[in-house]
Amino acid sequence: MTSHPLTPTPHTSTDDLGFVAELAQQFRVDAIRMSTAAGSGHPTSSLSAADLVAVLAARHLRYDWGEPSSAGNDHLILSKGHASPLLYALFKAAGVVTDHQLMTSYRRLGSPWEGHPTPVLPWVDVATGSLGQGLPDAVGIALAGRHLEDAPYRVWVLCGDSELAEGSMWEALDKAAYYSLSNLTVVVDVNRLGMRGPTELGWDLRAYARRVAAFGCRHLEIDGHDVGAIDAALQEAADLDRPTVVLAQTRKGHGFSGFEDTGGWHGKPLAPELAERAIIELGGNRDLALPQRLPVHRPVTAKPDRPVVLPRYPVGANIATRIAFGDTLAALGTALPRLVVVDAEVGNSTHADAFAAIHPERYFDVFTAEQQMVAAAIGLSVRGYIPFAATFGAFLTRAHDFIRMAAVSRANIRLVGTHAGVEVGPDGASQMALEDLAMMRAVHGSTVLYPSDATSTSHLVELMARCDGVVYLRATRGAYPVLYEATETFEVGGSKLLRSSTHDEVALLGAGVTVHTCLEAAQLLTDEGICARVVDLYSVKPIDSHTLQEAAKATRGRLVVVEDHHPEGGLGDAVLAALNHTGTTAHVEHLAVRTRPGSGSPAELIDAAGLSARHIVAASHRLLDGAVP
Amino acid sequence: MTSHPLTPTPHTSTDDLGFVAELAQQFRVDAIRMSTAAGSGHPTSSLSAADLVAVLAARHLRYDWGEPSSAGNDHLILSKGHASPLLYALFKAAGVVTDHQLMTSYRRLGSPWEGHPTPVLPWVDVATGSLGQGLPDAVGIALAGRHLEDAPYRVWVLCGDSELAEGSMWEALDKAAYYSLSNLTVVVDVNRLGMRGPTELGWDLRAYARRVAAFGCRHLEIDGHDVGAIDAALQEAADLDRPTVVLAQTRKGHGFSGFEDTGGWHGKPLAPELAERAIIELGGNRDLALPQRLPVHRPVTAKPDRPVVLPRYPVGANIATRIAFGDTLAALGTALPRLVVVDAEVGNSTHADAFAAIHPERYFDVFTAEQQMVAAAIGLSVRGYIPFAATFGAFLTRAHDFIRMAAVSRANIRLVGTHAGVEVGPDGASQMALEDLAMMRAVHGSTVLYPSDATSTSHLVELMARCDGVVYLRATRGAYPVLYEATETFEVGGSKLLRSSTHDEVALLGAGVTVHTCLEAAQLLTDEGICARVVDLYSVKPIDSHTLQEAAKATRGRLVVVEDHHPEGGLGDAVLAALNHTGTTAHVEHLAVRTRPGSGSPAELIDAAGLSARHIVAASHRLLDGAVP
Repeated sequence: MTSHPLTPTPHTSTDDLGFVAELAQQFRVDAIRMSTAAGSGHPTSSLSAADLVAVLAARHLRYDWGEPSSAGNDHLILSKGHASPLLYALFKAAGVVTDHQLMTSYRRLGSPWEGHPTPVLPWVDVATGSLGQGLPDAVGIALAGRHLEDAPYRVWVLCGDSELAEGSMWEALDKAAYYSLSNLTVVVDVNRLGMRGPTELGWDLRAYARRVAAFGCRHLEIDGHDVGAIDAALQEAADLDRPTVVLAQTRKGHGFSGFEDTGGWHGKPLAPELAERAIIELGGNRDLALPQRLPVHRPVTAKPDRPVVLPRYPVGANIATRIAFGDTLAALGTALPRLVVVDAEVGNSTHADAFAAIHPERYFDVFTAEQQMVAAAIGLSVRGYIPFAATFGAFLTRAHDFIRMAAVSRANIRLVGTHAGVEVGPDGASQMALEDLAMMRAVHGSTVLYPSDATSTSHLVELMARCDGVVYLRATRGAYPVLYEATETFEVGGSKLLRSSTHDEVALLGAGVTVHTCLEAAQLLTDEGICARVVDLYSVKPIDSHTLQEAAKATRGRLVVVEDHHPEGGLGDAVLAALNHTGTTAHVEHLAVRTRPGSGSPAELIDAAGLSARHIVAASHRLLDGAVP
Repeated sequence: MTSHPLTPTPHTSTDDLGFVAELAQQFRVDAIRMSTAAGSGHPTSSLSAADLVAVLAARHLRYDWGEPSSAGNDHLILSKGHASPLLYALFKAAGVVTDHQLMTSYRRLGSPWEGHPTPVLPWVDVATGSLGQGLPDAVGIALAGRHLEDAPYRVWVLCGDSELAEGSMWEALDKAAYYSLSNLTVVVDVNRLGMRGPTELGWDLRAYARRVAAFGCRHLEIDGHDVGAIDAALQEAADLDRPTVVLAQTRKGHGFSGFEDTGGWHGKPLAPELAERAIIELGGNRDLALPQRLPVHRPVTAKPDRPVVLPRYPVGANIATRIAFGDTLAALGTALPRLVVVDAEVGNSTHADAFAAIHPERYFDVFTAEQQMVAAAIGLSVRGYIPFAATFGAFLTRAHDFIRMAAVSRANIRLVGTHAGVEVGPDGASQMALEDLAMMRAVHGSTVLYPSDATSTSHLVELMARCDGVVYLRATRGAYPVLYEATETFEVGGSKLLRSSTHDEVALLGAGVTVHTCLEAAQLLTDEGICARVVDLYSVKPIDSHTLQEAAKATRGRLVVVEDHHPEGGLGDAVLAALNHTGTTAHVEHLAVRTRPGSGSPAELIDAAGLSARHIVAASHRLLDGAVP
């Protein structure tokens, strides 16, 4: 594999398209060598787009390869992440990885050269590999350049044709046009073959063009193997006042007759002998260097952060946590110039619009498109912003794949889901987040917060702004009494002991709205002469194991966990895992939403779900009457 | 509210469009009365579409209101589910609910007249309320009529304009055109006002029309308050050979000057005094009856089920569970004529294409559109089919909101997610399902299965076909030895004791691929003189509590749970919940994927994640060395 003699570099200048064509052949050869060496990967999907990437990288991309974090760099997003051999071949030509590294570590354990690119590599902005996500993420990056920075960087996206079947791509193009993202150029590698067989639209570039045009973007149709045509299209794209989609007709596996435009070759490396043949057909190994086109630096004077002045709420006042979220977001926006908000047309209900009222220039409504909402947040985090994205918690499930991938991207995004649980009331099950804690807890490295009152919400929203990773805050629709003085402190991984004595017989553990039903139950139990401890587990992940241990110790293991969520994957599971992890013996009565809720008032539905004070009292009695484990 | 005198019914025949206009006014009045009586709801969103629904129901819908389960009935899907007052007003005119019932029970506790419609009502096919789902579901219903039954029923969908911002709507229109669903008519109520303010495209019907046309559907643009124009459009739609989208320009709150075409009125009922005014302006109460237009019945002779002949696998042979899934699906297809399969362009990898090879007429590829894949399954289940939908488990997260709503719809769908966990190997994190167990466990009423070998897969896939609700099976990419004889029996809620003795010191609990690492670990422990029990927890939900209790009892509570999934919400949480529920004391060593995986071989990644035999042995030693709780 490595024995091929280097083809002499033709005497071309870097302006020469002939050089670019040679570079594309080099990418092809390297993609084949890399995937064959690894024994897996997607050579055919790399070869179809090699000319596109060669022209783009050599003649249009402005990028300081030695300074990948430079704010002036263009962004190149490989939305068709399975073409990683092509991207890595480019990186080799750019001089940031050696041929040896790629041939020995692509797709290997512990290597940053993963099967699909991730930001473990400093030249990669977002993880891709789940189709239909790179472009939506790129929209967020382009939004920043166009609307927050007035920066000259451009955002280039290479998409596959299969992924245009994902609705998320049309959400993205729609918003790209809506926000006039002229800094965004999307190149679609229309190689007509998907994983299983022909794509839905094949090489019908006109069909794609009609869709792109209808969604408000400019389209250009080209032969994706004609470097001159590619060059002209990318140049034209840069001159327009609208986002451009370059529809490039290509042939999968182009350059090797052994698999070019042939079905059954998706995601299959060539066997070594066949690879040898392919490399010969492609003209052998090359060692061309990508000409560096440095970005235009524009000095930016970042506005300094200012002290945060959080809203204050009087203890006892009835205030919804979603209101406190909105208030705090607005206050944080004043203090933190890099804080931005993405809405999905529900800002008047999540109360994110309190931020919009003061900082409209940092507020982006993507309308009813939750996938794009989260993707925009991911893209904004690439540019170093502090993005908050908020919708009903139930509708965040729409963006689950994006949230999962945000963790792989190591993006720093803050998600807020309002209208948690049956507490939503008359609107019914479709509007109730009853799976969101399970979804968000299972995201790698996530933080999950669930405040019970306005004061804790305010403090936790401030903490979120300073947290890395995927951070989720769950908020409640209705208004409940403020429990904490403004001077209270809160921390990720913390909890609050709201009520305790030296002779507690049972501990009531709640979060969000159930903190209030626990407090009510504790009072009822006290009236019966039973001392009950109440803990506000506002930090669901990480959870305060120490306080749980203490509660179990103090009550001979009698714990009642109450959550407005389905029984699986939420607060109850988190408590049991923490107890188990600390080797704490307890018997937990777990009250959760076990039947399908309908409509009703919040109080009625909380009671019907078995989360109200009387049910907590009954559960406490079951523990007190039963054998302590 | 109920004191309004009935307006005399004008002497119109049912053919008269004047009657329809009056019926629309009745719907408006009833929608206002209903929401005011309930104190919540969406009158303005109902009023904009009243003329559309009146014309549709009175002059086009063929429906036997007394026999909602009749196979000949048309289907009416309220994709804009928040307009439930309008739908229920229609049901009242159809005579299936009384005015009194609606006025006293809409949005009340325990009532079937929920805030957003659900199939608790026999005239409702699917639950709506999460925007962008009714139309995709309807595509599944129309697929059945057009491609499985050649049935004359039509599918009518009423959409809002806001929901056209959801990518899922474009996945749906794309597939409606691709599958030539001429039996599908989509009516879009373009009232230009969303929840927060104006929609993205306002009244730009031309912009919508361009998009609809580009996605391959016919479009008609009309004044949505002109009953004659509506009637003509719906008639024209029924005559076409393609799906039709009727773009109807309407005014939100049309009919009452107090809120017509006015912002700030989304989801707000009128106060009683204002409602009185509105009702007067609308001409007062009416009591018109919907003329019944019975469906054309076409006798269908259902093919009888035949005995299932499951594939058989020799014990010890290396066979991937995804292969066994495909084999079994094909075999079930032969036995069960109502079994259908939906693919998202990965059938050659999930091996669902084994079914396609034998039963191509019951196999629908929606290409890379996982939301539409699940929605099509939901729609097919409405028509009584047994739908299986399969993709990589990671990509099922894309359809989380649809899966959640499938449970609210009480749909019977079978989902299969292949490529579970780090076992995927070199492709890396983007392709690995590591959150799917958490997602699927938290779905109301779900069943979650995770077989370890080909034989158990085969049996469980057969069980799935006979299970109600949302049923999920998790499959593995790689090939592992067959563990069970073909004669073994499996059940939902069951498990298998693969290894045990009278003096087991530790129990190793796995599912899927970790059953194999547990078996390997047990052998290593035996070599050290330690007896280890091994349990295959192939039913994750419901889980076999009894066997867990027995395992804890036999081993003095020493349990190791091993799962190829993130630590939250999966097998470990399920085991702890079951132990807690049965009051069983145990100390569980929980091995799960706690770091972000990259690429590598399956065995390397399983080891790196701490799930391999040596880690299980080490965990067993920790339990044996430590204090037993």
